[in-house]
Amino acid sequence: MPNFDVASTAPLHPLARQALLSALDEGWADPARLYRDARHARMLLDAARESVASDLGVRADELSFTASGTQANHLAVLGLLAGNHRKGRHLVHSAVEHSSVLHAAERHEADGGAVTSVPVDASGRIRPDALQEAVATAGTALACLQSANHEVGTVQPVTEAAELCAAAGVPLFVDAAQSAAWSRVEGPWSALAASAHKWGGPAGVGVLAVRKGVRYRPPFPADEREGGRVPGFVNVPSIVAAAVALRAAREDAAAADARLRPLVDLLRDRVPALVPDVAVLGDAERRLPHLLTFSCLYVDGESLLGALDRAGFAVSSGSSCTSSTLTPSHVLAAMGALTEGNVRVSLGRDATREQVEEFLAVLPEAVASVRAQLTPATTESPSKEVTVVDVLGKLCPIPVIELARQFPAVPVDGVIAVLSDDEAAAIDIPAWCHMRSQAYEGQAPAADYLPGATGTAYLVRRLS
Amino acid sequence: MPNFDVASTAPLHPLARQALLSALDEGWADPARLYRDARHARMLLDAARESVASDLGVRADELSFTASGTQANHLAVLGLLAGNHRKGRHLVHSAVEHSSVLHAAERHEADGGAVTSVPVDASGRIRPDALQEAVATAGTALACLQSANHEVGTVQPVTEAAELCAAAGVPLFVDAAQSAAWSRVEGPWSALAASAHKWGGPAGVGVLAVRKGVRYRPPFPADEREGGRVPGFVNVPSIVAAAVALRAAREDAAAADARLRPLVDLLRDRVPALVPDVAVLGDAERRLPHLLTFSCLYVDGESLLGALDRAGFAVSSGSSCTSSTLTPSHVLAAMGALTEGNVRVSLGRDATREQVEEFLAVLPEAVASVRAQLTPATTESPSKEVTVVDVLGKLCPIPVIELARQFPAVPVDGVIAVLSDDEAAAIDIPAWCHMRSQAYEGQAPAADYLPGATGTAYLVRRLS
Repeated sequence: MPNFDVASTAPLHPLARQALLSALDEGWADPARLYRDARHARMLLDAARESVASDLGVRADELSFTASGTQANHLAVLGLLAGNHRKGRHLVHSAVEHSSVLHAAERHEADGGAVTSVPVDASGRIRPDALQEAVATAGTALACLQSANHEVGTVQPVTEAAELCAAAGVPLFVDAAQSAAWSRVEGPWSALAASAHKWGGPAGVGVLAVRKGVRYRPPFPADEREGGRVPGFVNVPSIVAAAVALRAAREDAAAADARLRPLVDLLRDRVPALVPDVAVLGDAERRLPHLLTFSCLYVDGESLLGALDRAGFAVSSGSSCTSSTLTPSHVLAAMGALTEGNVRVSLGRDATREQVEEFLAVLPEAVASVRAQLTPATTESPSKEVTVVDVLGKLCPIPVIELARQFPAVPVDGVIAVLSDDEAAAIDIPAWCHMRSQAYEGQAPAADYLPGATGTAYLVRRLS
Repeated sequence: MPNFDVASTAPLHPLARQALLSALDEGWADPARLYRDARHARMLLDAARESVASDLGVRADELSFTASGTQANHLAVLGLLAGNHRKGRHLVHSAVEHSSVLHAAERHEADGGAVTSVPVDASGRIRPDALQEAVATAGTALACLQSANHEVGTVQPVTEAAELCAAAGVPLFVDAAQSAAWSRVEGPWSALAASAHKWGGPAGVGVLAVRKGVRYRPPFPADEREGGRVPGFVNVPSIVAAAVALRAAREDAAAADARLRPLVDLLRDRVPALVPDVAVLGDAERRLPHLLTFSCLYVDGESLLGALDRAGFAVSSGSSCTSSTLTPSHVLAAMGALTEGNVRVSLGRDATREQVEEFLAVLPEAVASVRAQLTPATTESPSKEVTVVDVLGKLCPIPVIELARQFPAVPVDGVIAVLSDDEAAAIDIPAWCHMRSQAYEGQAPAADYLPGATGTAYLVRRLS
């Protein structure tokens, strides 16, 4: 079964597996102790630190190993804010950061800090001048920018961001989780984090690099491990495996880029040609080599993932329809992109053209089968002088499906009001209008169109 | 090389190693995803959770996996405090908890909370009535008690503590890191944590059980993983290995107890007979089966560990002399025990009588060799009417060595003042007096005995 979801987690690299096994024998002891087994563990840990530091472009004494990329992001955001509290309590981040960065930002805000989320363009890319303006705010203690987006693969202008933050005297933290397998992040950034299981290392290892001279204060209870930055027993065998995997990923990076980039280009070209009503998202050029996201109108993402699973393909989705929380992807929302029927394809280093062709062969039928299943029952209640579609209580993608189904009956220049209490509709109905070149006219209370109703009316004017 | 330091970390159990390898193949995917590989990971995770929950005596939905025992302890202490903030902000813990619990308590205190540390007796055991009194304080939100001490092996009255806390309406958190390999913790406790690498599982896995109905609020940024308690990617292969190791440890526990307890009794009997000026610490009966700690007067712990390492034995020490921070062990200090020359022996399940006999054979020479090396130069300056020993600037064990060296010249009923700026002297000089049946008369400023000196004078009266 081709796994096209390595952006979630990649299988352990064979060399890392060998290294893990050796280190379980030679490096299991506590590296802080004073006997032979402990010295072996310490030597392995030191060597792994040198190797990872070299691959990330930092000094070994700037690098701490964490228990996960999420922990590294939490520590980085809150530790840098605590260390730089004399600058102020203003945090700046892009609107499309990983949820772990946003969770740390929410915690900062709940503790009385100020947070600015810098918007992105339709490709998911931040505008450097918008970042520059945000960090110029008095009291800015930290800016956060991912090296590349985890849902759409868009590469951020992180080197430029590092330079403008340095010029403004604001430390920049870079979440490099998605790009660490591919290349160093260049520029005068202050701190960087990544996660080993994204680069072919084991789960349970993250990295946090804080450059010399950057102020950092542990935000949670701490001990003396990992330079006082990361408390708890140090997992030497997994760290050794992580270092081997990163080195292997980097040595293969140029060749893998040359193999995978054309496969993603093939998907970018062919998916919209093969499947009607699809939007391919993200930047076509400035992107990760192995990752592509597209969204399908009138499709329930969870059902589509199920259909592709039955066809033998493992992919994931950032859309509301696959998440237990039913919250639309904040990344797609920030891009103003359609969140429904979202599919993320992220190719492993061993992906072949044959597999990609096979995926393209099964995708149209998978989408069509899901669309065929969706035949919702709705009631239409005329009110005022607009066509009213009541899909209250129905979840994505039903609101957009019903909008599309009833749209042909709306006269040109007429208005249709979609009454919905699904959070995703606020993103998807405007996105549908954009794709269909119709006019989105905003929101009103649903009760304006259906007495006693709670929820929102989304208003669309037919232009053609 | 016999490893007599399994209380720091135990090597991976062979069955756990096999389970880890299988799970790296079958359980590497993200269990939150919607395809076949992900379902395999989810099934393995569910099975591991059922197994560990059963061994701990909790329901599977009460159990979260963490990245370490330290993380579990931090989350437990601060999450239970946050969840029970309406009760108040008073935290109670024993004086001999693991440093991770104390670090969380320090954080609570720094955030404005109140903390009471309940003292222990000379064996390191808490008195239930002292705990009862502490939790009766108005505004008590949480009590913490370890199941067994990590440095001296003393078992705490945790079931009794759970009952009296339940009667007082105060949740009890139990750090079961040292006992989880041996048995369930019985009683109506509210939450429990442990660490897999202490029971023969891999590093990188802790457990946090919070019983139904117990109020808990995530103290750090959180996501939807592990019931909202532990953020970050779930390390399924290591969790599977941890579950297998715990089951194996529990199945062997009764037999291992029967094998190891007599070996520790042998050490308890023979060490004081073979080595002069040794104090065996902890409770002789109510103790972990595999762990013993003793302290040697006039010995630098780090040098002694080195001598034992050269003789082929891996042991550890809680004494100030082996720690990079030079802070005396808070456990030994709370017991009023000698901190210098401290050696902790913790036997693995495969330890043999022959190895223990061999350890007893090399120990006297190891201690003697270290004592022989310590020939400090000191100056004595008469002042007032006491014998003054100036060891300012000298670290443990020099102050006690000099006290012992000059003591014979002090007349009966005379006083000797040891001038020291080593933090350990405050514990070790009273402990020496207790061992030698001499009178410790307290502290005074060193400047009272040596004009201009900074530091402390420790006053000892010769009784015999």
